[in-house]
Amino acid sequence: FLNETVENVRLIDRTAPRKAMVGTLYLSATHTIFVENNPETRRETWVLHSMVASVERPPTTPSGSHLVVHTKNFQVVQLLIPQERDAMDVQASLARLSRPEKYSELYCLSINPNANKEEREESWSFLDLQADYRRMGVPNNLWVSTPANSEYRVCDTYPSELFVPKSATPPVIVGSSKFRSRGPSDPFFSQAAICRCSQPLSGFSARSQEDEQMLEAIMKSNPGSDYIYVVDTRPKLNAMANRAAGKGYENEDHYANIKLQFIGIENIHVMRNSQQKISDVGELKTPSMGDFLWGLESSGWLKHIKAVLDAGVFIAKAVAEEGISVVVHCSDGWDRTAQACSVASVLLEPYYRTMKGLMLLIERDWVSFGHKFSHRYNHLEGDPKEVSPVIDQFLECVWQLSEQFPCAFEFNERFLVQLHRHVYSCQYGNFLGNSQKERRDMGLRERTHSLWPQLWKDRAQYANPLYRADHTQTQGILRPNTTPYCFKMWKGMYNRVEKSSPPRQTPTDLLTAVREETQQLEEELTNHQEVAPGGTAQPGTKQGIQTRSRNAPNERCSLRPIYKFINVSLLITIN
Amino acid sequence: FLNETVENVRLIDRTAPRKAMVGTLYLSATHTIFVENNPETRRETWVLHSMVASVERPPTTPSGSHLVVHTKNFQVVQLLIPQERDAMDVQASLARLSRPEKYSELYCLSINPNANKEEREESWSFLDLQADYRRMGVPNNLWVSTPANSEYRVCDTYPSELFVPKSATPPVIVGSSKFRSRGPSDPFFSQAAICRCSQPLSGFSARSQEDEQMLEAIMKSNPGSDYIYVVDTRPKLNAMANRAAGKGYENEDHYANIKLQFIGIENIHVMRNSQQKISDVGELKTPSMGDFLWGLESSGWLKHIKAVLDAGVFIAKAVAEEGISVVVHCSDGWDRTAQACSVASVLLEPYYRTMKGLMLLIERDWVSFGHKFSHRYNHLEGDPKEVSPVIDQFLECVWQLSEQFPCAFEFNERFLVQLHRHVYSCQYGNFLGNSQKERRDMGLRERTHSLWPQLWKDRAQYANPLYRADHTQTQGILRPNTTPYCFKMWKGMYNRVEKSSPPRQTPTDLLTAVREETQQLEEELTNHQEVAPGGTAQPGTKQGIQTRSRNAPNERCSLRPIYKFINVSLLITIN
Repeated sequence: FLNETVENVRLIDRTAPRKAMVGTLYLSATHTIFVENNPETRRETWVLHSMVASVERPPTTPSGSHLVVHTKNFQVVQLLIPQERDAMDVQASLARLSRPEKYSELYCLSINPNANKEEREESWSFLDLQADYRRMGVPNNLWVSTPANSEYRVCDTYPSELFVPKSATPPVIVGSSKFRSRGPSDPFFSQAAICRCSQPLSGFSARSQEDEQMLEAIMKSNPGSDYIYVVDTRPKLNAMANRAAGKGYENEDHYANIKLQFIGIENIHVMRNSQQKISDVGELKTPSMGDFLWGLESSGWLKHIKAVLDAGVFIAKAVAEEGISVVVHCSDGWDRTAQACSVASVLLEPYYRTMKGLMLLIERDWVSFGHKFSHRYNHLEGDPKEVSPVIDQFLECVWQLSEQFPCAFEFNERFLVQLHRHVYSCQYGNFLGNSQKERRDMGLRERTHSLWPQLWKDRAQYANPLYRADHTQTQGILRPNTTPYCFKMWKGMYNRVEKSSPPRQTPTDLLTAVREETQQLEEELTNHQEVAPGGTAQPGTKQGIQTRSRNAPNERCSLRPIYKFINVSLLITIN
Repeated sequence: FLNETVENVRLIDRTAPRKAMVGTLYLSATHTIFVENNPETRRETWVLHSMVASVERPPTTPSGSHLVVHTKNFQVVQLLIPQERDAMDVQASLARLSRPEKYSELYCLSINPNANKEEREESWSFLDLQADYRRMGVPNNLWVSTPANSEYRVCDTYPSELFVPKSATPPVIVGSSKFRSRGPSDPFFSQAAICRCSQPLSGFSARSQEDEQMLEAIMKSNPGSDYIYVVDTRPKLNAMANRAAGKGYENEDHYANIKLQFIGIENIHVMRNSQQKISDVGELKTPSMGDFLWGLESSGWLKHIKAVLDAGVFIAKAVAEEGISVVVHCSDGWDRTAQACSVASVLLEPYYRTMKGLMLLIERDWVSFGHKFSHRYNHLEGDPKEVSPVIDQFLECVWQLSEQFPCAFEFNERFLVQLHRHVYSCQYGNFLGNSQKERRDMGLRERTHSLWPQLWKDRAQYANPLYRADHTQTQGILRPNTTPYCFKMWKGMYNRVEKSSPPRQTPTDLLTAVREETQQLEEELTNHQEVAPGGTAQPGTKQGIQTRSRNAPNERCSLRPIYKFINVSLLITIN
């Protein structure tokens, strides 16, 4: 079914259904490509197969068969294909192409890993987690690196390098980790520490001396404090229900000096359904104000975003204002825990509000700590019940914060949208698999490129012109207002401006221009210009679906030059 | 009841009811003043009596009687008064003080008009409507000034100077105005014109040759066009209902070449109720996300804001894109018509997006064209059915636009909030009365000061640091997206940050700092510094309710120095 070509296809503008471009549809191994016939403009629209979430085919009409392509980043492409037969073929091909069954079918693994060997190797050393731990001041006289998990024997979803309180002996570490459904560790340090783990195997009455000693050791590693918070990010009812399965939450009678706090973030199934609803709201064609607000409310989405943000705020306050260490867990410690800890890090530490800092935070709190990317973001055809927008919610929390603190983030909305896209796209190897161990076993560093240096190359277009690195006012800590009044629908994610809208310079563009005038970006731009022409993404275009106009009048477009064009615009890492 | 003083009053922080300041409450002739006892801070909270909308007294509690003061600009002050008797007295005094029965009781008329005679006279010549008409190019060879209304004989709610098509003879002008429930005129010119009037007295079958000729003359004044739009801003059902009272809308069979368009802005009663609901939403103490979104939806407020904005967009498109003249009316021509025409002006003309331009627009489209300020904004104890937030909605449309086009407006949100405040405050004479004729008859120019030069003096604090006067991208025309996704609750109006929130530099402040660095505000600031110390309002404080901290430890505050403080901070025009 590869290299299918269909002529006289119409690309429908959903906001103005009478407007349509007529052109040719190509299916390549990697992209669905629509090229407009009009020789003046020859607009091209590209959809990466791995970004396709679903393809609907409504009943055939006299003018042909419609195909409605929904992408994983909430864009919609509607095609009208003259022959029903062709439409069915395209739908079947896309269904297959968009749901690979093996990792090897994924984009990043379908290329020759040695074409750019040196660049590939360099790309993986772009981020240095060790350096970030050193920046936080560990190891030190209270916290040490433990070799316990060096071969992933204690916990195969956790990284090989873990920090533990110096006073915790190896038997305590191993004993404690056995009492947790997954092992514990600690991603953030100031004087107080934020530690993360999974739920205890406490059931209705079980206890573990080692686990109790472990939490005691964590408390003692923060001199001057006489208790720690244990934050269970689940609703209390869910935590209680887990006791029947021999899991549950800490019994405050057994642990000396803990304060248990439930936060009430809902589970992955609730979140998956809620996101489906908010994305439906964003796709309404001509909603009334009532449709919109009713849909927004009944989706529950902003309520969930608020819960995640509130979790981060609770942790950040405990650490920064009370100076109390916090142990965070949910059920397994890789979803709600990752959300809560990484939101807290963004609130506490200005570094994580820079581009490189956010990359590092995702690398540490998500990638290295066993967030199940391939399951959650549906990289391979698998159990649909495992899919859930967990990191989507983290990225949205960052976005909501950036709306409330427009000068606090080095990056703009595009950066977050681009990160979101690449969590799903599988164009790079970073997010494949479900743990560090899986990635090591797949040899991804030897077979794929890393996303991070690519984003960095394009940083000029992700820069927030309002960013002020000076945090003297706030001591670097963000204290967001989390009343419901402060949340809004992320239009840039769920309701992007459609093509028919008149082209408009975004505020970001204008502001960047202001900054340029003040010459603050000059050096930045010089660096950027030294890179070969064309970065991965085009300023102002929609990631995921790319639409371009080319001035190539009367020149018939063949697949070959299109590929060339992909190479330049989308896939600079591939030769 | 004047100069009442109550000791040991608590000012309750509504977001954190346990936090309260203890202090003394003073009732002066003009303000309710709370002065904190704490000698370190001695925070003062001022509420202008004319800003008080209502004073509730919930059932007395063991700790005393609560008084909940709601202001006309949606702020809430909650006091706890130890003795029920005192609370009842204060409530009764405020009820009387906040509802004057005669204009002479209003603040701006209670002062000696000749204390600053020269300044007063100068203040009224700050804006020049004639100059704005000249800027628009009228009079010209197609439009002329008519003396018909010089003594308000044709229409007593319209200004004395009106422009009409040159081809309209005096009998046509007078005849047409007799067929309108109020006379017609024309506030905006490019090649096409926007004209405004009231509904025709058409009933089910009446017609007026002169009115038909008048509309024909308007069409002919726009060479090249062969029709005009008649925009009836009401819902069609309302317009039809008016026919039973001998009014209604234009019959397209009788008028050559008109296209009738209904817009569907609801009437003043619907708007009054809707605003009550949105302000209730903004005052919810600890709403859930569901409470908030459900309240926002069921208030209907954003739906109405969208309707007003859509009316402006329709008119602006007709004029700018089709080059067609528009005649706009509602029932009387002073509410919805003013909204629609002034929103269109803001969209069409960059000048009206500057501070001076917006002042001028309000002076022309609202003040001079008979918008009934005293009735709508409850300046005197009167018919509550006449009250409605008509200009509130216009100001909010401007705010919603400024959110969508953050670089297009010279002013920031504070400017709009301050304009809103002064529409209600009666500290200046600009908005008293219900028409230009009434204001002339009251001799307001001789007895009060004008607001405009005062706002201009304080312009540094109203400046939008993102403003870019360069409109080459858009030819100066704003083309807003009016899908429901683009609207949000105006938090700065209906849910201002409460006192308990940690002090935070607003983005506006930060951005202003950025601009200052680039020295673009330097000249501006130099001018500003030449003005005597202290403008009317304090940067960053809440207008309407002012809270200040003074460093006057151990110095007991008497009413005298407080008055001095008012003079400096609030009422610089009074000596």
